[in-house]
Order: sequence, then structure tokens, then C-alpha cells
Amino acid sequence: MVKMDALPRTIELVRSDDGAAALVYIDERMLPQRLEFGRARDWRQVVDAVKTLAVRGAPALGVAGAAAVALWACNEGATQARVLGCAEAPSAFLDGLDAVASEVVCARPTAVNLGWGVAEAVRVVRDAVAETGDVSAAADAAFSAVKRMERDDEAANRAIGAHGADLLPQGARILTHCNAGSLATVFFGTALGVVYAAAEQGKVARVYADETRPVGQGARLTAWELARVGIPTTLICDDMAASLMAARKVDAVVVGADRIAANGDVANKIGTYGVAVLAAHHGIPFYVAAPSSTLDARTPTGADIPIEERPPREVAEPIAGVDVWNPAFDVTPAALVTRIVTERGAFSPAEACAEVG
Amino acid sequence: MVKMDALPRTIELVRSDDGAAALVYIDERMLPQRLEFGRARDWRQVVDAVKTLAVRGAPALGVAGAAAVALWACNEGATQARVLGCAEAPSAFLDGLDAVASEVVCARPTAVNLGWGVAEAVRVVRDAVAETGDVSAAADAAFSAVKRMERDDEAANRAIGAHGADLLPQGARILTHCNAGSLATVFFGTALGVVYAAAEQGKVARVYADETRPVGQGARLTAWELARVGIPTTLICDDMAASLMAARKVDAVVVGADRIAANGDVANKIGTYGVAVLAAHHGIPFYVAAPSSTLDARTPTGADIPIEERPPREVAEPIAGVDVWNPAFDVTPAALVTRIVTERGAFSPAEACAEVG
Repeated sequence: MVKMDALPRTIELVRSDDGAAALVYIDERMLPQRLEFGRARDWRQVVDAVKTLAVRGAPALGVAGAAAVALWACNEGATQARVLGCAEAPSAFLDGLDAVASEVVCARPTAVNLGWGVAEAVRVVRDAVAETGDVSAAADAAFSAVKRMERDDEAANRAIGAHGADLLPQGARILTHCNAGSLATVFFGTALGVVYAAAEQGKVARVYADETRPVGQGARLTAWELARVGIPTTLICDDMAASLMAARKVDAVVVGADRIAANGDVANKIGTYGVAVLAAHHGIPFYVAAPSSTLDARTPTGADIPIEERPPREVAEPIAGVDVWNPAFDVTPAALVTRIVTERGAFSPAEACAEVG
Repeated sequence: MVKMDALPRTIELVRSDDGAAALVYIDERMLPQRLEFGRARDWRQVVDAVKTLAVRGAPALGVAGAAAVALWACNEGATQARVLGCAEAPSAFLDGLDAVASEVVCARPTAVNLGWGVAEAVRVVRDAVAETGDVSAAADAAFSAVKRMERDDEAANRAIGAHGADLLPQGARILTHCNAGSLATVFFGTALGVVYAAAEQGKVARVYADETRPVGQGARLTAWELARVGIPTTLICDDMAASLMAARKVDAVVVGADRIAANGDVANKIGTYGVAVLAAHHGIPFYVAAPSSTLDARTPTGADIPIEERPPREVAEPIAGVDVWNPAFDVTPAALVTRIVTERGAFSPAEACAEVG
């Protein structure tokens, strides 16, 4: 049995009777040891949560960015506006909005979704101010926009899940890398959304989670959320995936994506490409699950996707005379991808790109 | 410049003027933080060193096993014999020998070389007792046998290195997995023996070391010994090897072997098989360097090699509801092996097996 309700929502904007808003989120730094929630009333706390990786995952970051703007609008911005009085309020409010927005965007400069979420919230606020001239109506609009994003995210994930589940056989044994789970989204996940949808249909026998060095998202997050939902889960080191496939214990690989280029090349967490090569060698289908917003028509190929290199210390304590290479992402060529699963359906890489292009 | 003399011998039996023997070894548990030596005068200390992985690596374990027997013979056994007097000494000595031998063999039951080293030392002692009837002559013979093993190990490694170096291009960038280095042998190493021999010829531009989860032999040992010798070294996580190959930064893969079956299948540290698949996909030669004693004519194929599964805790702290799979070794099919390099030369897997068969 799949107990989806055992999994709390990763991120949720709430509002009390007096109109004050707060962002409630799972503090992922504490997992898997304990499930702990953060509660941010100040937008600066959201920036901190993003910077410290308490909140992570591309879809979750989009909502967090918008929520930071909404928190400011509902709390600090609205209060300031009340002090100023009606005449100057809207223009001071919009100045404050821009200042906050640019600071939130910089919390993690490489996360495209963060910027998208911030821009979306700013647009909604500006439109509301222009239409109504009323700061508190604009704050309400921002709050509503975030709640809509939350619903949209879950709906997209459930659609991805349904399309992806259709690809899996009965009794499927699935290998995944990194965490494209509920913990990377508002709820349900993308790659793990496929797993959950298939599990709700009784189709999943077991999920194997790569630990995903150096940061360990698989060991810390994926294994935790799968176990919590009640799906049989086995954690392996990244260098064991090949043996697992050779032992014929994997029916499908399902991973998420950080960006998909116009030719179908997929950028995702470091290690994904190696798993794709191994899957092809063993004749195992390799599925990428991601919302269609991940398809980036402006990036022609994987070679055009910049790959962030992260600090050596993530890999190991310094050893005299030893360099460390620590790329955070890699690129899987479209030729190794069996299907790209979005909320619109399951497509070959070429079809998926045509769909967006 | 390659400074081979910056690397101490991994394991060395020494004897003081009064005839007492001691085994000096690098305590590898302390690496890479510090280079610390253990000194065992009692054979039981050698058993401890083997059990706690202070001493590890198939060739080093062979010498350690023989050295434990020799230590007993030179120290405890010889003393007991002097107390007993001439008449009963030899038979009591041989009884003691057998008891010690069977305990040393059990220190790590899966290490074939350990048993081989013990058996070799026992044979030498028995022969000496039979020939001379003299316990102290037998102890001398055991000591000499260990010193001969030490020399043979280094000579084999240097020959492996010379044959392997011939396979590498000028400016070679080499990827290795686990530690088949000087630290796994008496001195010089097998896979890293190839690197050192090539580096002495000025052919090595850089070595990439897979960290080799879960135990981290690459991160802790391989990176340390390469840097100490002065070879440009880059440490990567295991899940980065594919990206490294795609970036055309690897000219050859060189690894060691724990056992090679009669059909050329190679058992080695977990993760080796995955690297072999990736190398084949990228058209990169995959070399296995090991003494010919690693070729096991009695094991028909890789499927006949038992794979040790180790405790989950090596991979991660327990997470409720999450299983862990932790195989210590994997099997690389002969078809993925470009050359097997032994002290006799560099052979195709079929040739290498015919050579031994």
C-alpha cells in the first residue's frame, strides 16, 4: 500500500486571520534523521532557507521565490503602506517590491526556477497595483498566485506520474538517481511522481536509490521519502548501479531533469549520464520526468548548458597535492533517452522538443 | 619528476641482532591524514592489523600471512622450543605452527592470498624441520621465505609496470578505481605500478582517482600515494567518471584484480564493471594489471566467483524502512577487458588464460 498522506507537503504558504502570511517548509537539512518544519514570516528567512539548502529542488525553488515576494507583500510591504497612507503607498510599495525581488533572485543564481517564480509574483503584484491602486489587494493577489503555483505544481506532477506509470511494467523495479521526488517539488515529485503513480496502481515492486555523491540527495532524501510512503526501497552506492543492472534487477531508470535542450539533451544531477550509458548497455529503458517548463527552446544542445562546478570540500577534506573535480550536473545526450515524460504525455526526445519548439 | 622513494614500503619483516623478528607496516587506517607505522612483534598483532584493515590489498595480505607465521616461529615458537629442550622441541613446534596458521588464515576468510602466504610459510618451516630437525633453523627459513616473497612481489609489480607502461601513450591521462597501488602490495603496486613505470618514462600527464564508495580506497589511499610520489592527481566521485570520459579527459583505464576466471572475466572492487562499460562506450582502452597468481584456472567464469556482501553501515547510517545492498566486488566480463597485464606481459583475456591454463 502506498501511503501518500504520510508525506507532508514540502512547501506551503499559509495566512492567518489577521492577514499575515508565513511559508511552512520541510527543512531538508535535517533529513533523514528527523522531519522538521521551518516557518518563515520574513522573506529574508526564505532567502536563508534557499541559500542553506533547507529548501531545494527546481520546482520547489520556483514556489519559494514567489512565496518570498508574497511574504514581503503581505507582511512588511503592506504594513509600510499602511504607515505611509494612501497617496504615496503604491509607488513606495513597488520600489520595495523590486528591491526584494532582486535580492531573492540572487539567493541561488543558477536556479532558473527561482528567478521564474520571483518574476511571476512581481508581475502579479504590479498588475494588481496598476488595476486597483490598492496595496492590500496586490498582497492578496500575490498570495493567491503562490497558492495557484502550488496547485499547478502538484497537478503537473500528478499528470507526469500518470503518463510515466503507463510506461512501467507490472512489478517494476526502478532505479533512480538524485532526488526528483516530492521533496524537490511542492508535492508528489517528478521522477518519484512516476513511481508514486505506478505504486498507486500496484505496479512497483522496488525502487533502488543511488546515493548520489557528493551531496547524497539519494541517500538522504529519496530513500527517506520512498520509505515513508511505504515503497520497498534499497539504497546503493553510485558505483553499484552497473552490477544491479547486470543482475537483471532493474526494469527501468527514471530520473528528473534540470534543463532539457532543444535537441533533447538532458542536464541533470552529476551521475545521471553514467546511469544512462549503463542502462543503454543493459537494454534498460531510461525515462526523464520533468514539467514541460524544463524544456528550454533557447538552448540548442547540451553543449550549450553551463555546468556549475562546486567546491572541492563537498567531495573530500583537502589532501596535499590532490586536486578535486566536482561538477554538479552532467548532460545525457538525447540518443540515450528513451522517453521524456511531461505533464502533457510521454514523448521521444525529438517529439518532446517539437511539442515545445 | 616521480619520487618513488617518497613512498615507504607498505609491509616489511625485520629482525634485530638477538634474532627477534618484527613486522613493520603502514597503518592504512590513518591515511590520508597521516603516515603512521605499526610494528608487530607478536603474530596476534598481525591478525589484528589484517582484521581492522590496517593492512589490506591482496598481495600485501599474502606477505602479511606468511609474516605472521614467521613472527611466531622466530619469537614465540623459538622461545618455547628453547624451554622444552631438544628432544620434544620439533614436534611441539610443529603443533604450535599449525594452530597459529589456522588462526591467521581466518583473519579474513575471503582473502585468497592470505591463505596462500600462510600455507607457503608453513611449508617452508615444515621442510626445514624435516631436513634439519632444528627449530631455530626453521625459524630462519621462515624469515628468509618472507623476505623472498617481499622481493618477488616488488619484482612482479615492476615487471607488470614495464609491460603496462608500453600500452600507454605519451601524456597519458589515466583513470583508476579503488587502490591497486603500492599500498595494496609490498611496494610499487599493480595498476599504479603501471602508472609509476609510465611516469618514470615521463609519459603520465594526470591520474584521475575514483573515490570508490563505500570504503573510499581511491579517496583515502590512491590519491594519497599518487600525490606523495608527485604525479598530478585529481580525485572524483564515482558518478563523475562518465562525464570525465565524455569530456575526452581519459586516455586509458587501469585497474587491479582480485581474481581472474579461466575465461578472462575479472573480479575486482565494486564499481570496476561500471567503469569498464563506460570505457567501452567511449572507446577508451580498459587495462587490468595483476600478478599471474591472480589468474584462477579452477574458476571457469565470473559467474563462479562468490561476491562478498558487506554490512549496510558501510554505505549509510540505518534509515527506517530502507534496505541497503553492499556488494564488495563485481565481475567485468572478458569482452570489456582490452588487455590483462601480468609480470609476463600484456595479453588479451583469452591469451592470458591460455598462458596460465
